[in-house]
Amino acid sequence: MDGCAGDQLPVSFTSAVTDHDASDAAGDLLGVPENQFWRDHQSSKVNAIRIRTLIENCDVAVIRFGNKYKQWNAAFDAGFCAALGKPYITLHDPEHIHALKEVDGPALAWATSPEQVVDILKYVTTKE
Amino acid sequence: MDGCAGDQLPVSFTSAVTDHDASDAAGDLLGVPENQFWRDHQSSKVNAIRIRTLIENCDVAVIRFGNKYKQWNAAFDAGFCAALGKPYITLHDPEHIHALKEVDGPALAWATSPEQVVDILKYVTTKE
Amino acid sequence: MDGCAGDQLPVSFTSAVTDHDASDAAGDLLGVPENQFWRDHQSSKVNAIRIRTLIENCDVAVIRFGNKYKQWNAAFDAGFCAALGKPYITLHDPEHIHALKEVDGPALAWATSPEQVVDILKYVTTKE
Amino acid sequence: MDGCAGDQLPVSFTSAVTDHDASDAAGDLLGVPENQFWRDHQSSKVNAIRIRTLIENCDVAVIRFGNKYKQWNAAFDAGFCAALGKPYITLHDPEHIHALKEVDGPALAWATSPEQVVDILKYVTTKE
Amino acid sequence: MDGCAGDQLPVSFTSAVTDHDASDAAGDLLGVPENQFWRDHQSSKVNAIRIRTLIENCDVAVIRFGNKYKQWNAAFDAGFCAALGKPYITLHDPEHIHALKEVDGPALAWATSPEQVVDILKYVTTKE
Amino acid sequence: MDGCAGDQLPVSFTSAVTDHDASDAAGDLLGVPENQFWRDHQSSKVNAIRIRTLIENCDVAVIRFGNKYKQWNAAFDAGFCAALGKPYITLHDPEHIHALKEVDGPALAWATSPEQVVDILKYVTTKE
Amino acid sequence: MDGCAGDQLPVSFTSAVTDHDASDAAGDLLGVPENQFWRDHQSSKVNAIRIRTLIENCDVAVIRFGNKYKQWNAAFDAGFCAALGKPYITLHDPEHIHALKEVDGPALAWATSPEQVVDILKYVTTKE
Amino acid sequence: MDGCAGDQLPVSFTSAVTDHDASDAAGDLLGVPENQFWRDHQSSKVNAIRIRTLIENCDVAVIRFGNKYKQWNAAFDAGFCAALGKPYITLHDPEHIHALKEVDGPALAWATSPEQVVDILKYVTTKE
Repeated sequence: MDGCAGDQLPVSFTSAVTDHDASDAAGDLLGVPENQFWRDHQSSKVNAIRIRTLIENCDVAVIRFGNKYKQWNAAFDAGFCAALGKPYITLHDPEHIHALKEVDGPALAWATSPEQVVDILKYVTTKE
Repeated sequence: MDGCAGDQLPVSFTSAVTDHDASDAAGDLLGVPENQFWRDHQSSKVNAIRIRTLIENCDVAVIRFGNKYKQWNAAFDAGFCAALGKPYITLHDPEHIHALKEVDGPALAWATSPEQVVDILKYVTTKE
Repeated sequence: MDGCAGDQLPVSFTSAVTDHDASDAAGDLLGVPENQFWRDHQSSKVNAIRIRTLIENCDVAVIRFGNKYKQWNAAFDAGFCAALGKPYITLHDPEHIHALKEVDGPALAWATSPEQVVDILKYVTTKE
Repeated sequence: MDGCAGDQLPVSFTSAVTDHDASDAAGDLLGVPENQFWRDHQSSKVNAIRIRTLIENCDVAVIRFGNKYKQWNAAFDAGFCAALGKPYITLHDPEHIHALKEVDGPALAWATSPEQVVDILKYVTTKE
Repeated sequence: MDGCAGDQLPVSFTSAVTDHDASDAAGDLLGVPENQFWRDHQSSKVNAIRIRTLIENCDVAVIRFGNKYKQWNAAFDAGFCAALGKPYITLHDPEHIHALKEVDGPALAWATSPEQVVDILKYVTTKE
Repeated sequence: MDGCAGDQLPVSFTSAVTDHDASDAAGDLLGVPENQFWRDHQSSKVNAIRIRTLIENCDVAVIRFGNKYKQWNAAFDAGFCAALGKPYITLHDPEHIHALKEVDGPALAWATSPEQVVDILKYVTTKE
Repeated sequence: MDGCAGDQLPVSFTSAVTDHDASDAAGDLLGVPENQFWRDHQSSKVNAIRIRTLIENCDVAVIRFGNKYKQWNAAFDAGFCAALGKPYITLHDPEHIHALKEVDGPALAWATSPEQVVDILKYVTTKE
Repeated sequence: MDGCAGDQLPVSFTSAVTDHDASDAAGDLLGVPENQFWRDHQSSKVNAIRIRTLIENCDVAVIRFGNKYKQWNAAFDAGFCAALGKPYITLHDPEHIHALKEVDGPALAWATSPEQVVDILKYVTTKE
C-alpha cells in the first residue's frame, strides 16, 4: 500500500503469498499428489503456516475481495479474525454488499478503495 | 437431514434461518434503514445472534456450499470454526475444490453429498 | 419480559437483583463498612457473584439503559460481554444514540422497546 | 500525564483519540451515513480499531470519568478489561462512588487525581 | 453446609476429599513411594483429578482457612480461581486478614462464618 | 472397564473407535485415495471428529499404551490434554517408564493396570 | 539471584515489591482506610497491578516459601501460574514438603536453595 | 539446520536439550531419586520448563521422528501444538505414515528430509 509509505505511517504490511502460481504449488516441494484435491490440500496447508502466523501477530487485518474470483479464502480469514476478536477491515466494491453482509457484520470498517484503508490506518495510528 | 432420522442417530441438527427473505429482513423489525449497506448490516447482526450460539454449542459443524451463490457467509463460518478449534465438515461439489482449498484445509472431512455427511456422523457417533 | 411467556418462546430470563435497596445492601450481611466507598465496594462484589455467572452462562445478554440513572454498570456489562464474544442486545431510547455509540458498536442489535427484544428473541429461536 | 515525564518513569502512555470532533467523524472518510445511528455506529467501529489494540497491548489501563458526559464508553472499556483480566485503575471524583461501584469493583485502584495515578504507576514500576 | 438444606436453596455443594488420612494416601493405590516427597506428590496429583474438575465446573468456590494448618492448598486453589476468573468467597477469622490480603483481594466476598456464606449464596441465587 | 459397572460408579466411558480396520477405513466412505498417505490422512481426520469432541467433553482422560504398537496417537492425545489443562491418567507397563517420561510428566497418575484406573476413579468420584 | 550474574545467564529477574512496609502501605497513597481489612485490601490490589503483569510476562516463575510467615500469597501465585499453564519452580525447605504438596504438584521443579534454582535456569537456558 | 544459514533466512531455531545423557539427568541437580520412575519424572519436568516456553513462543514447530526410538515425546509435543493451534511440520520417513497418521492429521506439512523443511520455511518467510 504505497499510500502509507508516502505518509510515513508507523505501519508495516504483511500478506499471504500473492503470486498465484507459486501459492498453488506451495506444497509441491513435498511431492506432487496426482489427485487435485490432495494437491490443493497440501498447498493450502503450507500457505496456512504463513497466513495464521501473520493473522495472529497483526493488529488489524485488511480483507480484500476482488471481482474476478470467489475468494472464499478471504471470507474464511475474516471468520478466523472474528472468532479471535482480531479487528479487521473489509475492502470490496458496493456491488458485493449483500453477498458479504455476514463478513461485513463483525468488521470494524468497510472500505471501497485502498486509499480509504490508508486513511483509516492513518487516523487510528497517528491522530491525537 | 432425513438420513439421520431414518437411522435413528443420536444427533440433533440446528441451522441458520434458511428462509432467505426472512433472513434478509431479520433486522427490519428494529426499523428499516434506507441505505442498503446498513439494512444488510443490521440483519446480518441479528442473524449472528443465532449463528454464533449454534456454532459455539455444536460438536461438529457442516458447512455447505451450493452452486448458485457466492456463499461467503459459509466460508466465514468455516473460518470462525477453525479459529475456535471446532470440528467442521465441508459439503460441496468437486468443481469447487480449487476455490475452496483454504476452507477445506482445516476441515475434518470434505463430503460431496448429504448422504456422505450422514455416513460420517453415523460412524463417529455409533461405531464401537 | 411478559411477551415471551405469551408467545411460549424457548427462552428463560435471568437478571441481576433489581431491588435497588437490596442490591446496595448486598454486602452488609458481612458487616457494614463505615466508609461509603468500601460499603459500595463490598456490595458490588457480592452482586458480581451473581452477575458474572449469569453473563457467562447466557446465550445472549440484553443490556438496558433507562433515563434516570447513569447506569455505568450496564455499559460495564456490555464491555464484559464484548470481550468474551458473548452476543448482546442494547435497549435504550434514541436520545442516547450518540452517548452509547461505543456500547452499540459491538452489540448485535439495538432495540428501543422490550417488544422489539422479544421479537428478536422470537426470530432467532423459532424461525426456520 | 506530565507527572510521569518529570519523574522519568519507565512508562509510555497511549489513548483513544481525544479530539471529540475528529473522533465523532472517524468513520466519515468511508462515506457519511444520513442516519445518525449509523453515522455514530461507523465512527465508533473505526475508533474501536485503535482502542481494542491499545487495551490488549497495555499492561494497565487508566479509565477516567469526568463530570460533563455520561461516558458510558469508559465504563464499557472497564468491562472489557475486567473480562480479559487486564488490570485497570479508575479515576473519578468521590461524588460518583455509588454510581460507579460495579466499575470500581474489579478495578485494582480508584484514584481521585492524575497525580495519584502517577504515584501508583511510579510505585508499581520502580519500587524495589 | 446444613444452612442451605434448611433454606431449600438451589445450590449443591462439592468438595475435595476431607478425610485427611485418605487424602494423604490417595496415590498409594498406585504403589507407595518410599521417599516422602514423591509419596505426597503422587497423592496430591490424584487428588487434583477431583479438585480441578470441581473448580472448573462450579459457579462459585468457597475457600476456607482454618486455624490449625498452613493450608497453602486453599490459597493455591484461590489463585487458580482468580486466574480463571472463577468467583470465589474466602472464609476465615479476622486474625488472618493481613496474611491473607493477596487472597482476599480478588475474592468477591470475605466471610467469617459458614452462616455468612449461606446468606450470600441465598442472596445471589434467590433474591429477585 | 467392567470394574466400574460392578462398583456402580458415577462414571461413563467413551473412547475412540477401537475396531482397527474400521478406524483405518473411516475416511473411505468419502472416496478412497490411491496414495496411502492421503488415505490415512483422510481417515485420521474423520476419526478426529469423534476424538476431539470426546476429549474436550470428558472430565478425565485415560491414555493407554500397549506393548504391540508405537501408539503415537496416544501420546498425541496426552499432549492435547496437557495443553488444554485436561486431567489425564496414563496406563502402561513399567518397561515404558523411560520412553514415556515426557507423557507421564503432566499426567495426574500413572497406572499399571485397568484395576488401578478404576480404583482412582472410584476414589475421586465417591470418597467423602 | 547473584549466581546468575556470575554465570552470565540470559535471564532477567523481576519480583513483587519486597520492602514489606512499603508493600503494606502500597494503597495508602490513595487515602488510608481506617478499617484494617480495607487498608490491606487496597494495598493488595495496588500490588497486584505489578504482580499480575510480571507473572503473565515471565517465562518461568520462582515461588519461594520461607520459614517465618504463612506466605499464602506465594501459594496463591502458584495457583495463578498453574491455571495459566505458566511453568513455576518452588523453593522451600524439606520440612514443608507435606504442607506444600498441592503447590508442588503442578510445579516443574522443587528446589531447596537459590543455587539449585540458578542451576535449573542455567540448564534450561544454555544447555545444548 | 544448516540449510537455513546458507540461505540467509529470517528464521531462528530453538530446540529441546539434545544431549540425551544431560537431558535424562536434568533433574538430578535437585537430588537423585532412587526410584527410576521418579528420577525420570523429575527430569522430564525440568526439561518441560524449556520445551513449553519454546513451543509457546515459536511461530512454527518442527516435530521430528527418527527410526531408533519410540519418541512418544515428539508425538506429545505435536498434540500440545495442535491443541494450542500452533502450526507444526512433521519430519519422518514414509515407513511411519500409518503409525503417525493421527499426528500428521493436524500438521500443516509432512516432510521427509530436513531440506524439505528448509524449503518450506524459505517459502513461507520470503516468497512475495
